[in-house]
Amino acid sequence: RINGDRLWDSLMEMAKIGPGLRGGNNRQTLTDEDGEGRRLFQSWCEKAGLSMGVDTMGSMFFTREGTDPDALPVYVGSHLDTQPTGGKYDGVLGVLGGLELIRTLNDLNIKTKHPIVVVNWTNEEGTRFAPAMLASGVFAGIHDQEWAYNREDAKGKKFGDELERIGWKGDEKVGARKMHALFELHIEQGPILEAEGKDIGVVTHGQGLWWLQITLTGKESHTGSTPMPMRKNAGLGMARITELVHAVAMAHQPSAVGAIGHVDVYPNSRNVIPGRVVFTVDIRSPDLSTLTAMKTEIEDKAPKIAKELGLEILIEEAGHFDPVTFDEGCVTAVRNAAERLGYSHRNIVSGAGHDACWINRVAPTSMVMCPCVDGLSHNEDEDISKEWAAAGTDVLLHAVLKKAEI
Amino acid sequence: RINGDRLWDSLMEMAKIGPGLRGGNNRQTLTDEDGEGRRLFQSWCEKAGLSMGVDTMGSMFFTREGTDPDALPVYVGSHLDTQPTGGKYDGVLGVLGGLELIRTLNDLNIKTKHPIVVVNWTNEEGTRFAPAMLASGVFAGIHDQEWAYNREDAKGKKFGDELERIGWKGDEKVGARKMHALFELHIEQGPILEAEGKDIGVVTHGQGLWWLQITLTGKESHTGSTPMPMRKNAGLGMARITELVHAVAMAHQPSAVGAIGHVDVYPNSRNVIPGRVVFTVDIRSPDLSTLTAMKTEIEDKAPKIAKELGLEILIEEAGHFDPVTFDEGCVTAVRNAAERLGYSHRNIVSGAGHDACWINRVAPTSMVMCPCVDGLSHNEDEDISKEWAAAGTDVLLHAVLKKAEI
Ligand SMILES: NC(=O)NCCC(=O)O
Ligand SMILES: NC(=O)NCCC(=O)O
Repeated sequence: RINGDRLWDSLMEMAKIGPGLRGGNNRQTLTDEDGEGRRLFQSWCEKAGLSMGVDTMGSMFFTREGTDPDALPVYVGSHLDTQPTGGKYDGVLGVLGGLELIRTLNDLNIKTKHPIVVVNWTNEEGTRFAPAMLASGVFAGIHDQEWAYNREDAKGKKFGDELERIGWKGDEKVGARKMHALFELHIEQGPILEAEGKDIGVVTHGQGLWWLQITLTGKESHTGSTPMPMRKNAGLGMARITELVHAVAMAHQPSAVGAIGHVDVYPNSRNVIPGRVVFTVDIRSPDLSTLTAMKTEIEDKAPKIAKELGLEILIEEAGHFDPVTFDEGCVTAVRNAAERLGYSHRNIVSGAGHDACWINRVAPTSMVMCPCVDGLSHNEDEDISKEWAAAGTDVLLHAVLKKAEI
Repeated sequence: RINGDRLWDSLMEMAKIGPGLRGGNNRQTLTDEDGEGRRLFQSWCEKAGLSMGVDTMGSMFFTREGTDPDALPVYVGSHLDTQPTGGKYDGVLGVLGGLELIRTLNDLNIKTKHPIVVVNWTNEEGTRFAPAMLASGVFAGIHDQEWAYNREDAKGKKFGDELERIGWKGDEKVGARKMHALFELHIEQGPILEAEGKDIGVVTHGQGLWWLQITLTGKESHTGSTPMPMRKNAGLGMARITELVHAVAMAHQPSAVGAIGHVDVYPNSRNVIPGRVVFTVDIRSPDLSTLTAMKTEIEDKAPKIAKELGLEILIEEAGHFDPVTFDEGCVTAVRNAAERLGYSHRNIVSGAGHDACWINRVAPTSMVMCPCVDGLSHNEDEDISKEWAAAGTDVLLHAVLKKAEI
């Protein structure tokens, strides 16, 4: 079993970097705080005897050698970046759980045949630079690296430039590493495990997602002196598409969700009818045909809404992954580990996207989930118990050991 | 008649300060650009022999002496501040038209019994600091000066501090000046005069307005892993209230307008359900009972929308003026001036708020309007012709002379 206190202390230590305003974290990708978090993680890993590699997307890999020089490594990890008003555990638990697993093996002097590598993927959250899971996506060959370097944040800063700026552009070619398997421990970010009193979620599938960035262009004009029939109100168009996205998700219950989290209104002045709005639709389903049907309906109806209001519309794909089926062997390793350790568990579908979803394309992969309070995540109040974190990390350890072979 | 070329040159010269991105202006109140515009205006006025007074709200008053030491001055003017993506004429025409009128009197060596004062009111637009027409509102005794000083912009900077920072806090007590009359020349900002081919709008009334700042508080959570029934989506609430405001205005056609121009979404991340939104409803009508009915309906229905979505709602009044009936004598002076000069004209209701609307509470007041292309304003493409500007200023001159007495 892992050391739950030590894991918790590390979680609390990391949470001091990029503190939020209400007890959570704001450690967005490629900010100075991200750089500081990376250095702390590096110092811990090196103290644990691991050797670092960093790829040209800034993802960090820390290796514990195996006994068989020919055996491919087993990977564990997640991400250290957070939402602007994020929690202390989303991503961080998977990275520091990986480190805790190494520390435990060191304590017990256990050697494995396969090397074990702990990884911190760059820009999982996708808030500052869309899409989410950017570095693992390049790793899995989904995105081109040059394309990724050119992603821009809200201020027009480029991913590639910011990666250089914080000093974490490594020299390893992205995706060159071959993996025996990868496991990602993550908080559920949903309510199911807590509601059912289960210690562990055995993640069999992941939802698919589309991010559609929509730009509506109307005409800026005076809110007072422009007669109603002459208006081209881009904000009203956004309101109607917000309602459409909600309705489309509601029509596919319980296996679909949809919302708009990101909104920019121009010029954003109380007495100016919005001349332009840019916003991102987020729709998801574990079922590919549902996901596709939702996207098609929005792409069909949103232009009609725009037309009715005299608005121009541009719909751009800003993020996408198909629903994922995780590797049966890895899923079984997780389930058996929970079973062996006596933790209650159930199969679960990940509602969120994870780096593991991309890596599943290039290596046998699965995930371990632990509950979180009220299913709340992407919120500074995100919370878990020390026991939940420890149980998840225990299961991670045993699943990894199954694949890494003692 | 005034000198239309000279007026136009001054308009173009002023437009160089705080240029916009698309040919208009971004010279928001109490920015460095506002300070620069004020200095240019001051230099012109002093060259025209006027003496400056500045009150503690930063409003600038330039006096041309009259022949009767006991006669109260006739005021003309408007504002030099602009929207963030504003035009070159909204406000500026009224100020520089006032200056042109003085230059013309100087050229013709015409003396008036009453002094004439050209005024630039501070913060008419209300974009950076709500409400609009702030300094004229303090002048008219509507707002308390301390309250005005504490208005904050989006970055939390205070009106009073910014006024000091740009060096335009004067020492005159606000509202101490007594006025014989005030005239404001302004572009229509609506489509009526151009559509009907009229040179001049004789402004008999002004619409009333309510700005309601609404804060909806839901719960930030993950767009992927939060089941639809568990969501408290503040963005969806805003969409529904946007639709409500539109419907309420449409129910009172043609004598009502309504829209939402200002929107802030928190945390504004693609994969976070908005936990909080702050936005400002702008509703207007020339008819007080309609305006009141609209406000009541929104205040009644918006909380129901919020409740249905599990959101908390806070509605704050962020700006208000009742419909205005301008002074009959001043209105007649404007109409007679247009008539005498042979300009086509019609009565018109101002769709926008103006400093003249507040001053009308403390002095006989009215306005002169000239057409603008496509009725477009609060847009960098706002446009007028040199001839329209000259005609409006001619009428302003003659209305002023009627009151100032040669
Ligand atoms: N786990 C997580 O919150 N990932 C961010 C990407 C997503 O929106 O699903
Ligand atoms: N004239 C003008 O645009 N004033 C700004 C105040 C308003 O919104 O009516």
